[in-house]
Amino acid sequence: MIDFNITPINLEIKEKLQSKIDGKTKPVGALGQLEELALQIGLIQQSTSPELKKPHIVVFAGDHGIAKTGLVNPYPQEVTFQMVMNFISGGAAINVLAKQNNIAVKVVDAGVNHDFGNLPGLVNAKIALGTKNYLEEPAMSTEQANEAIQMGANIVEEIFTNGCNVIGFGEMGIGNTSSAALIMHYICDMPLENCVGKGTGTNLKQQKTKLQTLKKAVDKHKNSNINNHFSILTTFGGLEIAQICGGMLKAAEKRMTILVDGFITTAALLIASKINPNILPYCIFTHCSDEKGHRAMLEFLNSKPILHLNMRLGEGSGAAVAYPIVLAACTFLNQMASFESAGVSQAK
Amino acid sequence: MIDFNITPINLEIKEKLQSKIDGKTKPVGALGQLEELALQIGLIQQSTSPELKKPHIVVFAGDHGIAKTGLVNPYPQEVTFQMVMNFISGGAAINVLAKQNNIAVKVVDAGVNHDFGNLPGLVNAKIALGTKNYLEEPAMSTEQANEAIQMGANIVEEIFTNGCNVIGFGEMGIGNTSSAALIMHYICDMPLENCVGKGTGTNLKQQKTKLQTLKKAVDKHKNSNINNHFSILTTFGGLEIAQICGGMLKAAEKRMTILVDGFITTAALLIASKINPNILPYCIFTHCSDEKGHRAMLEFLNSKPILHLNMRLGEGSGAAVAYPIVLAACTFLNQMASFESAGVSQAK
Repeated sequence: MIDFNITPINLEIKEKLQSKIDGKTKPVGALGQLEELALQIGLIQQSTSPELKKPHIVVFAGDHGIAKTGLVNPYPQEVTFQMVMNFISGGAAINVLAKQNNIAVKVVDAGVNHDFGNLPGLVNAKIALGTKNYLEEPAMSTEQANEAIQMGANIVEEIFTNGCNVIGFGEMGIGNTSSAALIMHYICDMPLENCVGKGTGTNLKQQKTKLQTLKKAVDKHKNSNINNHFSILTTFGGLEIAQICGGMLKAAEKRMTILVDGFITTAALLIASKINPNILPYCIFTHCSDEKGHRAMLEFLNSKPILHLNMRLGEGSGAAVAYPIVLAACTFLNQMASFESAGVSQAK
Repeated sequence: MIDFNITPINLEIKEKLQSKIDGKTKPVGALGQLEELALQIGLIQQSTSPELKKPHIVVFAGDHGIAKTGLVNPYPQEVTFQMVMNFISGGAAINVLAKQNNIAVKVVDAGVNHDFGNLPGLVNAKIALGTKNYLEEPAMSTEQANEAIQMGANIVEEIFTNGCNVIGFGEMGIGNTSSAALIMHYICDMPLENCVGKGTGTNLKQQKTKLQTLKKAVDKHKNSNINNHFSILTTFGGLEIAQICGGMLKAAEKRMTILVDGFITTAALLIASKINPNILPYCIFTHCSDEKGHRAMLEFLNSKPILHLNMRLGEGSGAAVAYPIVLAACTFLNQMASFESAGVSQAK
């Protein structure tokens, strides 16, 4: 399997950073979580004047064999392809939200069940026309998973080479909250009931069917040797999740700041953090999604999300909306006056 | 007293707005609180394509007689003046955060205990060199309070005339969390213990002294006729709070979207909402501050703040940081494709 060489964060600069934060013209701690973000980004960049450069959000799209059954998804599978077309023409939430905040968007075909031909604006990283149905067989082969991780890494490496140092990950794939729920069930060792939510918007009856279906999937593979994160990924997919996983690991290797979005991208991070736990200090958790399992997933990762807006759209939309707050952390750290420079008296 | 003619929100357009929101290429409700904000701004502007124009944050500064005693404030009174100078030279948190988000900042001397002369960039609306010490006498006269409300209204009217339709309010005034706590105590009818917090950063001993001092202030005036919001304002101040109150009421009269910041500006809104309750649907609550009483104050107003970042800086900083999220509500409503226009299949 592909190896990632992620440098653990050197904490030597921490005191200097904290003292710069505390010297700004504000009561100590008064910028709350912005101060924590400034500290984290400073540590990631090993600088007391960190800068966020050429922000990107990469949306990985992939289809899921299970979605063809209609048992877990109220939207038909072709919506994945249709939404990719929507991304390419700029009409989706992620397009307009990223544009507002000066974030570049890249769209990747990780494994959509559609032949796009040579579509300008779409990165072709197709591994297959969707995964297999895990009610019958593993979603992907070991080779496919490895290839997907490598491809995700390559895409991020190219973005890094072009000068980006802050990257968000988004996804699109009808059925992928089911993959994410299964990954969560195994990695966080939590009952499936706590991991399965309404996804794109199943009603109560559909949600019950979804849960029963995923229980069957777990049951189907109970004699397979699902003993580590890699077999969890290959058994339950998806290809977009595998590519995000590789992309995140490469981003940390390059000391980029990683913007983690919602339920599915956090599931990808669960796998990535098992591959190399050094990735975690590079991650900023942009929001807590309204998707049922996300809060518990975030708690499992000891993370403190920035936003709590009950969003549950995916696409990287939470990362796009939260980005100005991440940027604000650098803004105050780099641009605010200090007590000394402004001649302001300190507290007694 | 000056009268404000605030139009109640006409709900006729609500259904049309909701249907536009629901028709966007996303599961119904998937943008969470952004959808609620879009609906609110659409209602305020009575438009299915609301636009936020020339955003402003106005920072009102004023001094408090009580601050001279040092009993409620770890920072000396002159910090109000020093911070105004910091605002004018662009080095404070509000300057850099607003600039990042393309928000214009105006700084108003509502009653700072300093003669600024003719300082370029500072709006001179000085009512007095600070309020009186309410341990001894009412903070301001009826005439001063009326004049302050009128001046705040005039400042906002001018900003509106120049094309702004979304306005945040910030404040600076050593000692003003004490005024806000007293206003909250009376208007929300809550024990002073629940209203008094650490302000700019009192330690536990200072906080105890602050609470005891404010109890004395309440006691001092127990035989005065503090029977309505106006006498609460004149008794406990401050001049910046009175001007914000007038500014907010004028903003609602002009159908502007009001960005409410933290503990002190919300206290100003408590008074404003007693003067004219029609103001409330024009208010967006940008964040829940870390200042002790703010959460209860927000609950009293049945409001749902956007951010929970443990900020407690004032200056309008919460409004500045949250603004891109308010903007995102308009962005998705105006720019996203609909299912129909994008040719995306809907859920079954």
